[in-house]
Amino acid sequence: MSASLELLKQFQCFGGTVGFYRHDSVACNSPMRFAIYQPPQARSQPVPVLYWLSGLTCSEENFIVKAGAQRLAAEYGLAIVAPDTSPRDTGISGEDDDWDLGSGAGFYVDATQTPWDAHYQMYRYVTEELPQLVADRFPILPEKQGISGHSMGGHGALICALKNPDRYRSVSAFAPICAPTRCQWGEKAFSHYLGGDRTAWKAYDASELVLNAKYDRPILIDQGTADKFLEDRQLLPEVFQEACKSAGQPLTLRMQDGYDHSYYFIATFIADHIRHHAAALCG
Amino acid sequence: MSASLELLKQFQCFGGTVGFYRHDSVACNSPMRFAIYQPPQARSQPVPVLYWLSGLTCSEENFIVKAGAQRLAAEYGLAIVAPDTSPRDTGISGEDDDWDLGSGAGFYVDATQTPWDAHYQMYRYVTEELPQLVADRFPILPEKQGISGHSMGGHGALICALKNPDRYRSVSAFAPICAPTRCQWGEKAFSHYLGGDRTAWKAYDASELVLNAKYDRPILIDQGTADKFLEDRQLLPEVFQEACKSAGQPLTLRMQDGYDHSYYFIATFIADHIRHHAAALCG
Repeated sequence: MSASLELLKQFQCFGGTVGFYRHDSVACNSPMRFAIYQPPQARSQPVPVLYWLSGLTCSEENFIVKAGAQRLAAEYGLAIVAPDTSPRDTGISGEDDDWDLGSGAGFYVDATQTPWDAHYQMYRYVTEELPQLVADRFPILPEKQGISGHSMGGHGALICALKNPDRYRSVSAFAPICAPTRCQWGEKAFSHYLGGDRTAWKAYDASELVLNAKYDRPILIDQGTADKFLEDRQLLPEVFQEACKSAGQPLTLRMQDGYDHSYYFIATFIADHIRHHAAALCG
Repeated sequence: MSASLELLKQFQCFGGTVGFYRHDSVACNSPMRFAIYQPPQARSQPVPVLYWLSGLTCSEENFIVKAGAQRLAAEYGLAIVAPDTSPRDTGISGEDDDWDLGSGAGFYVDATQTPWDAHYQMYRYVTEELPQLVADRFPILPEKQGISGHSMGGHGALICALKNPDRYRSVSAFAPICAPTRCQWGEKAFSHYLGGDRTAWKAYDASELVLNAKYDRPILIDQGTADKFLEDRQLLPEVFQEACKSAGQPLTLRMQDGYDHSYYFIATFIADHIRHHAAALCG
């Protein structure tokens, strides 16, 4: 697998490098793409790494182009890895038909249902295969990993951390889908990827997982109050907040007045998130 | 004209607002679009304004999405106005055929040649009509204007400032086309927009204008050394540097090792440029 790693393009940025790569994923049985920012500190020593999971319709590029995170990653000496949000061009019928299912909408689960199960193994990909590849080929500290994300990727970040508290020392999210088993986006995706048995869905729902997760470090979530998907009840931060309370999980949920679901919102508060991760991972 | 101002979309960002507008331009005899960032300070008092002129193929959106400038504009209390790079959908034959002429390539000149002269009046648009509109409709201080830009827009920023030293208190540029009468991009655009008489071209060439400009404040230019357009001799910063030296024009030309022509380069150094403008415009 690692042998296939191909650098597609590279840019110098804040003294480090942004690289876009493609490789043949075993988990997804498909080529996958990701971006990695290597801060200037990585030239002389291995550095901690923050995984960023993007939202519906995004690729590996959106966060790197729009969030302004590299400035802070360079300051704190943190690598950032941003994978694509699904396999693409797999040949699965209907893969590109919906913006909230298939391409660009992998939902960070391991599909069990045909035809998706042949390629849509995004949970294994982002928690196992990609971190192994990154550790093998880049100067990072695999024992110092954090994870964050936006919307569908915020859901992804929360479930990855809650299912693997030893593997992710820090977690945060922007406008995450907090309870996918209780919202339309999640119900659609999970029924296709995981089938009709809703009990199987709970393994990928942060508001269920947190009840037994024993993730003893604080979780940071920012949510804009003018986010139309909040109003549409796709995000349900109050459900996660209540579950955290029941479980004794430390949570800082910040309702940000007037902000929407866009990268203008993410860019505004990314510094606080990078500092949250740096406090756990750096130094 | 002002009556036509239409808000297309708006986002909260770093405590202020990013707005995308369309209006009917008299100068261009066509609808034009621009983006404006109003920092939080603009809610209580008028603020200085920085104009940003983008490069070939860009719209009013690229800088606002990719540069990370709003963070600093919010810090210093500076509005940012970013116009589109040309009229669009004017009906001029061939308008969309080339990426370096017509749509997305207005070059910030007032065309004198048919068919372009009917709409491509970008110099008047960015120096007169747009600032007047912005002063009429937004809480800015019209006597405190700066200008910056990238590539074709760096050329635009330099000529606007050098032709109007009293109107622009500060100027900077990223990888500007410094001597358009001596490079292929400029020769192509100027021959179409301004005709075959090269003496007319000099009125839009920063390296000619600076010889008599009496712009007595320092100009800041950043140029990446790994910029392929530098190697292709489209940018020619050394020509501008020599002209500044002859004219006694203060210039800080920083050759940034390993950086290319992309927004990753701009994002890396935008803070220095905002501070350069804030020093002249704020406080």
